[in-house]
Amino acid sequence: MKYVYEFGGNQTEGNSKMKELLGGKGANLAEMCLIGLPVPPGFTISTEACTHYYSNGKNEVLQLLRSEIQDAVKSLEQKTTKKYGDPKNPLLLSVRSGARASMPGMMDTVLNLGINDQVIEGLASDPVRQRMAWDSYRRFIHMYGDVVMGLKPQEQGEEDPFEEIIHRLKGDRGVKLDTELTVDDLKLLCQQYRSKIKERLGHEFPQDPWEQLESAITAVFDSWMGRRAIQYRKINNIPSDWGTAVNVQSMVFGNISDLSSTGVAFTRDPATGEKLFTGEYLINAQGEDVVAGIRTPMQITLEGSKRWAILADVTEDERKKTYPSLEEQMPEMYRQLFAAQNKLEQHYREMQDLEFTVEDQKLWILQTRTGKRTGMAMVKISVDMLDEGLIIEDEVIERNDPAKLDELLHPVFQKEAMAEAKELTRGLPASPGASSGQVVFFAEDAEEWANAGKQVILVRMETSPEDIQGMHSAQGILTSRGGMTSHAAVVARGMGKCGISGAGALHIDYRKRTMEVDGVNIKEGDWISLDGTTGIVYSGKLATVTVSIGGTFERLMKVCSKKAKLRVLANADTPVDAITARKFGAEGIGLCRTEHMFFQEGRIDLVRQMILSHDEAGRVRALDKLLPIQRKDFEEIFEAMKGLPVTIRLLDPPLHEFLPLDEVNERALAQQMGINYEEVLDKVTTLHEMNPMLGHRGCRLANTYPEISIMQSRAIIEAALNLKRRGVEVLPEIMIPLAGISREVIMQIDIIKKTAEEVFAETGERIDYKIGTMIEIPRAALVADRFAQHVDFFSFGTNDLTQMTYGYSRDDFGKFLPVYLSKGILKADPFTTIDQFGVGELVEIGTQRGRTAHPGLKVGVCGEHGGDPESIKFFHRTGLDYVSCSPYRVPIARLVSAQAAVAESRKMEKKNALP
Amino acid sequence: MKYVYEFGGNQTEGNSKMKELLGGKGANLAEMCLIGLPVPPGFTISTEACTHYYSNGKNEVLQLLRSEIQDAVKSLEQKTTKKYGDPKNPLLLSVRSGARASMPGMMDTVLNLGINDQVIEGLASDPVRQRMAWDSYRRFIHMYGDVVMGLKPQEQGEEDPFEEIIHRLKGDRGVKLDTELTVDDLKLLCQQYRSKIKERLGHEFPQDPWEQLESAITAVFDSWMGRRAIQYRKINNIPSDWGTAVNVQSMVFGNISDLSSTGVAFTRDPATGEKLFTGEYLINAQGEDVVAGIRTPMQITLEGSKRWAILADVTEDERKKTYPSLEEQMPEMYRQLFAAQNKLEQHYREMQDLEFTVEDQKLWILQTRTGKRTGMAMVKISVDMLDEGLIIEDEVIERNDPAKLDELLHPVFQKEAMAEAKELTRGLPASPGASSGQVVFFAEDAEEWANAGKQVILVRMETSPEDIQGMHSAQGILTSRGGMTSHAAVVARGMGKCGISGAGALHIDYRKRTMEVDGVNIKEGDWISLDGTTGIVYSGKLATVTVSIGGTFERLMKVCSKKAKLRVLANADTPVDAITARKFGAEGIGLCRTEHMFFQEGRIDLVRQMILSHDEAGRVRALDKLLPIQRKDFEEIFEAMKGLPVTIRLLDPPLHEFLPLDEVNERALAQQMGINYEEVLDKVTTLHEMNPMLGHRGCRLANTYPEISIMQSRAIIEAALNLKRRGVEVLPEIMIPLAGISREVIMQIDIIKKTAEEVFAETGERIDYKIGTMIEIPRAALVADRFAQHVDFFSFGTNDLTQMTYGYSRDDFGKFLPVYLSKGILKADPFTTIDQFGVGELVEIGTQRGRTAHPGLKVGVCGEHGGDPESIKFFHRTGLDYVSCSPYRVPIARLVSAQAAVAESRKMEKKNALP
Repeated sequence: MKYVYEFGGNQTEGNSKMKELLGGKGANLAEMCLIGLPVPPGFTISTEACTHYYSNGKNEVLQLLRSEIQDAVKSLEQKTTKKYGDPKNPLLLSVRSGARASMPGMMDTVLNLGINDQVIEGLASDPVRQRMAWDSYRRFIHMYGDVVMGLKPQEQGEEDPFEEIIHRLKGDRGVKLDTELTVDDLKLLCQQYRSKIKERLGHEFPQDPWEQLESAITAVFDSWMGRRAIQYRKINNIPSDWGTAVNVQSMVFGNISDLSSTGVAFTRDPATGEKLFTGEYLINAQGEDVVAGIRTPMQITLEGSKRWAILADVTEDERKKTYPSLEEQMPEMYRQLFAAQNKLEQHYREMQDLEFTVEDQKLWILQTRTGKRTGMAMVKISVDMLDEGLIIEDEVIERNDPAKLDELLHPVFQKEAMAEAKELTRGLPASPGASSGQVVFFAEDAEEWANAGKQVILVRMETSPEDIQGMHSAQGILTSRGGMTSHAAVVARGMGKCGISGAGALHIDYRKRTMEVDGVNIKEGDWISLDGTTGIVYSGKLATVTVSIGGTFERLMKVCSKKAKLRVLANADTPVDAITARKFGAEGIGLCRTEHMFFQEGRIDLVRQMILSHDEAGRVRALDKLLPIQRKDFEEIFEAMKGLPVTIRLLDPPLHEFLPLDEVNERALAQQMGINYEEVLDKVTTLHEMNPMLGHRGCRLANTYPEISIMQSRAIIEAALNLKRRGVEVLPEIMIPLAGISREVIMQIDIIKKTAEEVFAETGERIDYKIGTMIEIPRAALVADRFAQHVDFFSFGTNDLTQMTYGYSRDDFGKFLPVYLSKGILKADPFTTIDQFGVGELVEIGTQRGRTAHPGLKVGVCGEHGGDPESIKFFHRTGLDYVSCSPYRVPIARLVSAQAAVAESRKMEKKNALP
Repeated sequence: MKYVYEFGGNQTEGNSKMKELLGGKGANLAEMCLIGLPVPPGFTISTEACTHYYSNGKNEVLQLLRSEIQDAVKSLEQKTTKKYGDPKNPLLLSVRSGARASMPGMMDTVLNLGINDQVIEGLASDPVRQRMAWDSYRRFIHMYGDVVMGLKPQEQGEEDPFEEIIHRLKGDRGVKLDTELTVDDLKLLCQQYRSKIKERLGHEFPQDPWEQLESAITAVFDSWMGRRAIQYRKINNIPSDWGTAVNVQSMVFGNISDLSSTGVAFTRDPATGEKLFTGEYLINAQGEDVVAGIRTPMQITLEGSKRWAILADVTEDERKKTYPSLEEQMPEMYRQLFAAQNKLEQHYREMQDLEFTVEDQKLWILQTRTGKRTGMAMVKISVDMLDEGLIIEDEVIERNDPAKLDELLHPVFQKEAMAEAKELTRGLPASPGASSGQVVFFAEDAEEWANAGKQVILVRMETSPEDIQGMHSAQGILTSRGGMTSHAAVVARGMGKCGISGAGALHIDYRKRTMEVDGVNIKEGDWISLDGTTGIVYSGKLATVTVSIGGTFERLMKVCSKKAKLRVLANADTPVDAITARKFGAEGIGLCRTEHMFFQEGRIDLVRQMILSHDEAGRVRALDKLLPIQRKDFEEIFEAMKGLPVTIRLLDPPLHEFLPLDEVNERALAQQMGINYEEVLDKVTTLHEMNPMLGHRGCRLANTYPEISIMQSRAIIEAALNLKRRGVEVLPEIMIPLAGISREVIMQIDIIKKTAEEVFAETGERIDYKIGTMIEIPRAALVADRFAQHVDFFSFGTNDLTQMTYGYSRDDFGKFLPVYLSKGILKADPFTTIDQFGVGELVEIGTQRGRTAHPGLKVGVCGEHGGDPESIKFFHRTGLDYVSCSPYRVPIARLVSAQAAVAESRKMEKKNALP
């Protein structure tokens, strides 16, 4: 078995396809050698060695690897014409980790291996290199002492022992920077470091270069199982049995003289995506200095340098003198570097993040990898590369990350503002975006303050449909209770408004109009800021920025729509929502909740009048007055969505949600209606429910009071006919909520059809419409075959389905969700990402039984999961026809839907490619 | 095709196995002829003729039947030596319906067919028979005019036209009884009846005997589709395509002279089941007179007569003179009758209800059928017949009706009291039994009043665990809300206490301590009575009786247990419940709800102390004090159930159920605990849940606060060891509630096992115990394979499973259940009888997946469905191991479980018997 793979010089054994074996870094180093780029030669010890290390232990692995490593070092000595451990012409090595997936900073590195008391003498014999030599020895002892020998702070809070020594020395010398220390100081440091190691660990810093090398290699293996690495893998779902490779490479130095330099570069601008080679460098420096921020790094390109100067307010003269670009300073090196980066991008067909060093006028490329980028850059680079013919459409789709895309659709806090932001508490990231405002505790205040031109954040224990207007007026919503699908969260996402829910540490006192968190008191009118993407609440006011999305975004969406199989509709309750949805490319409305219209001013009174009626006649009188209002709403929504389907769900919530919540408002209602307070109270008491989520709502209500469905069906059909008359194409779909028994659906269908026929008879005109049912009750999924034959479509309401399948109330779930997540009982919030085992099986069963009984049945999802990437992929696999999500999630859903389709076709290709 | 089947005389074509073709009555008439009993000859027109009638119409069927009927009448004339329509020696006929299943009184009958103006002359020519002849003619015109010709009241409330005429005549004559009318009066009646027919219907009463016969036959066919018949079939699930047969039989007369008589008899006492021939008769009377109650009927046997005399306070002399038994009055007839009834019972191997007539010293048996009986008689007769060798054990099981058995286990209102009872309102029959008491509206009052020796009925909108003590003290429980599995219903059934829930018409005013229903006001202290078997609430106090169940009941149960596959356990929370359960034959406890113990005095304070603790240490302190109390409870229960398994469920309800519900009690608690009221209020607010049914309870609580499970596990294991030490065999099983995710179960199992091992280590002793999980969340059923490998048993909690699968809150369901039942959306309350399609499929899936992953897994049910016959049959078919129900349902469950096993073996026999 072979464990060691050389790269560079005249022999390279790996390539970029061997990431599993050589890790990302090792594979790319080999690849760069293969395409002729100047890479310091070295070798990679494979991930299999790491796996072997963990199953058979250190000694056995070293025995196994020893001769291979020695051979590889020998080969390296030939390639570099230096000799490891030879004071005369010493070869120095770096030892770095390199896993299959990038785990930046999670594992250990040791540089400058091969120095000892003899080697240093040789290394430092060249006066030009003397300082570099001692600085390298000092750094080597520090890194080796820390990483390999394990000299670390003994208790929490203690300073790093090496740092402590250098701090003390700099204090004694009265200097601030390491670079201000003299060569003698560096020698002293080496001595002090080694004494500390001896004192603390009881043995000497090793002088044998081979011991140094072997111990450094096993230390890197050990760091694979370090605490940080384990945590990182857990978060990023990286299997622990992958193991890491180890890269042993000859050292090059950018800090020998002014003819040396070092830097990092991106093949395109990682912030904007612009096709512009960009990066920073430092003359006479080592890699870590560029990122350390002690000296101001300079721009690589002239154009970059000029742009920088404008921003940094530096004159052209000063720029040329003090901050020249590499392009000006080392034109030949720049020419080679530019050619190299161009070669890399063309070769990898992806934006690269690379590291280079110029050692004595010779360019070395030390590393290349796919460059990290902002959401905006992600979209632009992918679309530009498509135009450049570098990648195909499938790749454009694959290269966009839905989470990053989401960033583009909401404002974020300014970077500068964030630096000084003070975290107050945390809750669930209920609705993305960032906003600041003055705290108010009541929806009416939110409206009033907003009307007075103030920016407000509405803070509530939980919100209810009564708060809708206030939520509209607020910049953001913060609740101390509720989960990711609580009322506050759902409404905030629907409005595209930033929201945090379930911030449990918050204690709200409505009477005093204050809230308290960890001893901090916030009163009405105080400023706070919400980051709905992270769930963090900050005190004070923070500035926000909005990224503008332009033509490239549209381009991306078009590519997605071409590939996607799952159509993307939006949940939209108002004409404004509908327009937003259309703007984001929704292919229709998959859920229009009629009840939200009921809460608007002037309407709620009619609804209450209906509820307080003693008999059907009274209810019908109130409903007759609601009819023209509903009809007008529907006309506006139909108009906004012309040519696209609009699915209107009949009344869903229990009636008590429309009644006032306290005595003051109950009394006001009584007065307004001209009835006794007791009568109102009696109705409130009668309608009270212990578990409203499992109560008298949805079609249960409509089958008890058919007059409600009659009014709503009439409003829908009349609105559709009115528009048709004006030449607008209308595709109405009527949806029955909360059905669990086929008879419930049949009765509602009878009512809808009868009403429609009445309207057709009255007007002498007809229009096509569809009738469907929500599948949101576990039983409905199980008996879906009994439903399917009666309807045109199914729409899975996966919020309620999750509530009932798990037995979780989304309003109360926040009480134990954090515990469940922290104890690992739940891997994710099932209201955010669909549970594929329980809830998912019901979706599969419902779809399969529905389609068996009714071939061609349209099946979709209109729960919050419709906007969640993992869930969308599941729905694609399950063969659904569409998802419907909040307007602001539509682009993400379109992207993920396309990704799912691409993944499927890739899988098919692979399958077909098999012999 | 043959439609007419003769019986009697020298030719009988049917037998008792031909009920499908000849109906029950026709088949039995034929059978009696075959075994040599004296039956007036006749013929049966088959149910196929009825089916033909409904598919092809009257005329075609008559054409088809005419010659067969004429042949049959001719044969009848030969057998009786009379002639139909012949004035000299007229044959008179009766025409009666006779369906496959008994539909008493639902269809029509016409007697005395064949009389016309000529025939009456011949019939009345014998002076002895003159009155009988005219009375028969009068009756015939009345019945025929009503049933065949359709002369009925024209509008609601109008008197029957025939009754009106006879009433008028009796008024004119100043007499009260029909029998007081003279022969001339009867002649006048015939005339007036016929005039009325002519006047109202426009045509004459038919004189042609053949027209009479054909029309009477088709009238009986028509009555199969009468409104009453259709309703009856709907209620009793009788298919409408079965049709009815028609029995045409020669008339015999018990009212010719004192040498004639008529009566009804039972082969055993239908009230007590005693093996005692019993029945009533009247001399010189017609069948209907016996049941009409105008004359007091006399007892058939001497023993019966003597017993009757004692009850009726009649001296032996008077009895002999005025109310002699048939045995004394007509000893030869009695001898023949006794022999006949004996023959019938031996032949049918079942208690018979028979009708007979003595015409001029000749005995005729007119009908026999299985006799209706009380629950007590049902049990006794079946067990006695087993002992007599008449039937086998399977038949004993089949012949007992679970609903009737239930009657035996609860008190009922006295018949006499019921006659004057005033219905107040109706609710759901939540818990069977009958009781009266004074109304109280608060649980504390119930306790106080009961302690003061009063009988109380606790009336609440709904009950909560806080009310448990008050419910214990009450005679019965009445709630205005909630369904069959509401808290009140479940607890009442568990206590074997009569209860009515969801009496929606009731308006309770707690402040005024009154309730109002349909304008009637009831205040605290007023008497009401509840019939929990029917759901009817009566005003006032009604006397109750309790049927005593003795040895025969035990015998029945033993037979059942021999056959049953499904074991029957009981839900029992206290030692008292456990003793009751054992008394009723429970094979263990399938559900012991530990939280019920928490509400008892002295304990609730500790529970509240735990809840109000700020940290785990505080909770542990409170739990430490609860430990010995719980241990003692468990010891008592284990003791009561020694040798049988006891399944203890860990804490299930949410913590807020243990906190007070109003400010007064909250303040009291604060004072008692020595903390601020605000602190209590804060906890109450924090723990409040929007949907507690879907909230923080069950193992969700136990996984958040493991210390609760630790205390309970310790109490169980310590209690078991203590008893084992005393030589008591203990089989503890620990059950984890509300699991939906396998990790939830695994974590609880870890806690339980760790605690048990700790106790074992401390004591140096071990005991076997089992761990299981409830499957009550839809997801749990779907992922049952992931649970099964970790546990010893599953127990389906079908109450919660039904709640979540249907999305119904059992507390709120009462609001629309009545509407859903009346509109036919639901066929039955799914909390009473399991929904076999949705919930049932989850039980099947859970069982199958559980057993696949863990062969030998024990699977049972501990929801309310465990005591419901239809549900038990379903669980048997699904292959479950046991059901657990409230102690008072145990006998029913044992019976039904045996019935399911017998039904299965019968099915297997049938299958195996096929060629």
